[in-house]
Amino acid sequence: MAQQIEQLILALQGKLDSAAILVGDAVDPRYSDDLSHEVSHRPEIVLRPRNTGEVAEILKACNAVGQKLVTQGGRTGLAGAARVQAGEAVLTLERMTALSPVEPATATVIAEAGVPLQIVQEHADAAGFMFAVDIGARGTATIGGNISTNAGGIRVLRYGNFRAQVLGVEAVLADGSVVSSLKGLAKDNSGYDLSQLFIGSEGTLGVVTRACLRLHPRPVTQSVAFCALPSLDAAMELLKFLRARLGTLLSGFEVIFDPLMSEMAGALGLQPPVELNAPVYVLTDIQGMSPETDETVFAEALGQAIEDGLVADAVLSQSEREFQTLWALRDDCNTYLFGLEPMLSLDVSLPLPRMGEFLALAREAQRKADPSGRDYIFGHLGDGNLHYCVKTDAPDAVARAVLDCVARTGGSISAEHGIGLDKKSYLHLSRSAVEVAAMRRVKAALDPNNILNPSRIFDMTA
Amino acid sequence: MAQQIEQLILALQGKLDSAAILVGDAVDPRYSDDLSHEVSHRPEIVLRPRNTGEVAEILKACNAVGQKLVTQGGRTGLAGAARVQAGEAVLTLERMTALSPVEPATATVIAEAGVPLQIVQEHADAAGFMFAVDIGARGTATIGGNISTNAGGIRVLRYGNFRAQVLGVEAVLADGSVVSSLKGLAKDNSGYDLSQLFIGSEGTLGVVTRACLRLHPRPVTQSVAFCALPSLDAAMELLKFLRARLGTLLSGFEVIFDPLMSEMAGALGLQPPVELNAPVYVLTDIQGMSPETDETVFAEALGQAIEDGLVADAVLSQSEREFQTLWALRDDCNTYLFGLEPMLSLDVSLPLPRMGEFLALAREAQRKADPSGRDYIFGHLGDGNLHYCVKTDAPDAVARAVLDCVARTGGSISAEHGIGLDKKSYLHLSRSAVEVAAMRRVKAALDPNNILNPSRIFDMTA
Repeated sequence: MAQQIEQLILALQGKLDSAAILVGDAVDPRYSDDLSHEVSHRPEIVLRPRNTGEVAEILKACNAVGQKLVTQGGRTGLAGAARVQAGEAVLTLERMTALSPVEPATATVIAEAGVPLQIVQEHADAAGFMFAVDIGARGTATIGGNISTNAGGIRVLRYGNFRAQVLGVEAVLADGSVVSSLKGLAKDNSGYDLSQLFIGSEGTLGVVTRACLRLHPRPVTQSVAFCALPSLDAAMELLKFLRARLGTLLSGFEVIFDPLMSEMAGALGLQPPVELNAPVYVLTDIQGMSPETDETVFAEALGQAIEDGLVADAVLSQSEREFQTLWALRDDCNTYLFGLEPMLSLDVSLPLPRMGEFLALAREAQRKADPSGRDYIFGHLGDGNLHYCVKTDAPDAVARAVLDCVARTGGSISAEHGIGLDKKSYLHLSRSAVEVAAMRRVKAALDPNNILNPSRIFDMTA
Repeated sequence: MAQQIEQLILALQGKLDSAAILVGDAVDPRYSDDLSHEVSHRPEIVLRPRNTGEVAEILKACNAVGQKLVTQGGRTGLAGAARVQAGEAVLTLERMTALSPVEPATATVIAEAGVPLQIVQEHADAAGFMFAVDIGARGTATIGGNISTNAGGIRVLRYGNFRAQVLGVEAVLADGSVVSSLKGLAKDNSGYDLSQLFIGSEGTLGVVTRACLRLHPRPVTQSVAFCALPSLDAAMELLKFLRARLGTLLSGFEVIFDPLMSEMAGALGLQPPVELNAPVYVLTDIQGMSPETDETVFAEALGQAIEDGLVADAVLSQSEREFQTLWALRDDCNTYLFGLEPMLSLDVSLPLPRMGEFLALAREAQRKADPSGRDYIFGHLGDGNLHYCVKTDAPDAVARAVLDCVARTGGSISAEHGIGLDKKSYLHLSRSAVEVAAMRRVKAALDPNNILNPSRIFDMTA
């Protein structure tokens, strides 16, 4: 065992329970799990605190001996931020799963970092509220991980990303000191909002231990439409039309391009809701409070869109079962693509007015980089966020080609998955040298020994 | 003239136009304006850049000679952050008032920092959208100042505070380098969201020069009710009831306590909308997209609230004119109180479940601190935000007494006005020593020579 690990164990003796420190054979292989095909190391030590005080003891001890750590939530990240690097200890929040009762007056709940997203969703629902972020990994992904990656998903269009759901966090800094903003105040301008630092910084600035989360009134009505459209331009017009017509009723606006839709339907044996002969499909839904009128308003808007030629064909859910069935098509995209290999999966966002320009450029560049590659594109069109996947034997060349087009059309190389270890080499396409330098200065200020998720997002030396 | 100022002028020679540097008699007294009664210094030099490049030149030059600056927007701040301290140069964004056309696909607009809030509101309205933050100082307060103070106002309940309206900012760091996030992307997780650093940090971390602002669909319907209520408890129940019943229709929920309401009506000769014999009044409104149903839904909800005894009496606006007239009562509170002297004005927020406990404690403490003081309380009850004003000859003792009650009930000593120079001595009541230390570390990382709005929020040495 490395001497440093022995020092660490010594320093933590008596401060944690016996289940809190795993070494040697006791280290379960799950801590080395990673969704990518990259090499993950088996950690020499896994630290499993039960509460914020124990996290503080652990960081204080690690900081003293210069022990680097990687913090793990549900390990469902798609950029390798939680993948173990050589010499890193694992800090897992898996034992911190407490959840407060919902506070109805403020519509808030306080969750420990290790609570899975779906548990928060169900907890809110049972109290008559809704937690507004939803992503495919809901059953495993944790609140701490969601905060660290500023998770997005299918309802950002209406409710904002994870940042918008966080009233405040409690976090442990690298030196073991604790900052806390769990008061549940809608307004608090007493100095810097430190919570913002920890949202989306992928565990590099501190370890989030608890969060006060904002809930929304649970919608009374929901209804989804699956639409076949003649073009991307029509989809953009439909989005603009529905936003203006439906206001906040509009909750989701997802796109699936062909050939993904028809191939997937064939491969998974799906009963397609409309005839599959269009280049673009849109899943769009509403959530409202007025059973008498919401669905009529939605149906009338879609009727108008068909009349105006924006939509070629559409099916509107008539029941909760149909709502779930239609929405399942969206999750099916992931199911289908996970089964195809070798698959390059990019997660990009574009300014909506330049989406068409980007797609034309990117498809051309992608085909030049790998003429036999095949693209499967879907995503959150309402947010300008596409999951651009390519079945290719030349993933690096294709990634470079497509991400270069993202940069040329003013987009981001990571819309919601983050940078982690895997997108680091492309960060310069989205962020200037000045911006990365500013990030380094903030990182050095809060974690001077660089022990927290080191080398994620950027390296400390240029 | 101080030697340092001479060096600065020399360094900037040829880089700015002649109207960009004011010294001596050319310095208009307005740059020393301040809404408080505190002493403001006449600055030796006022710098008036026309664009971001010029701001960068100015900061680079100031940083090189260690010249401290105070950045000014509309000078409507209520915590003294823009008040000139001895030796400070003034940097004013008053010449940076460009505004892009509204981008309808993304519902965004890019504004330079010097644009007054009201201009953005009107610009959005003319394009069929709405800018969601509104405050009394809309005609003078600028976007840059609003961002620096994370302005709140009357619609935070529904749309969030200023932070929620900002997709990204461009800012100049103390060393003159420029960071920019004006792409207008709803999702961008490529590294730290640096924009968040500049929102609410009162100009201490950088100078915001431009912002990409999020707009909302312009509501088709709006309607406001003025209600007399039997108690604060009833107001809290009404809020909970309306949130659950109206969902996102509910846009504002303001409170005016007696004696403010009846005194103000008498003094300003107002025609009261209901008989003024209640302890608590609530102004609450909706904004929606369905002319056929929204007002009915609102009226039925209020009818139910009257039946349930939550509301004693209510008037619902029946026209745009009545809407404006009822809402004017809220602005009248400020008009009336600005005329009363000597007035202590506190801006606090509380966890909603402890609002009643706070008010009981605070009124007792306030009366103990000054038995002849008279409290006038109103504010944004939906956000837990009260403007707690006291006509008193012992403002320091009363402020200490009331803010101590804020701390004891888990609140914030500044809900929306910020800390600036004037609330610094109370910051410890809201934020721990660890938190203030973390703020100092971030400040030192980005502004190592402490030239930007120095000593606002906190001093660099404890």
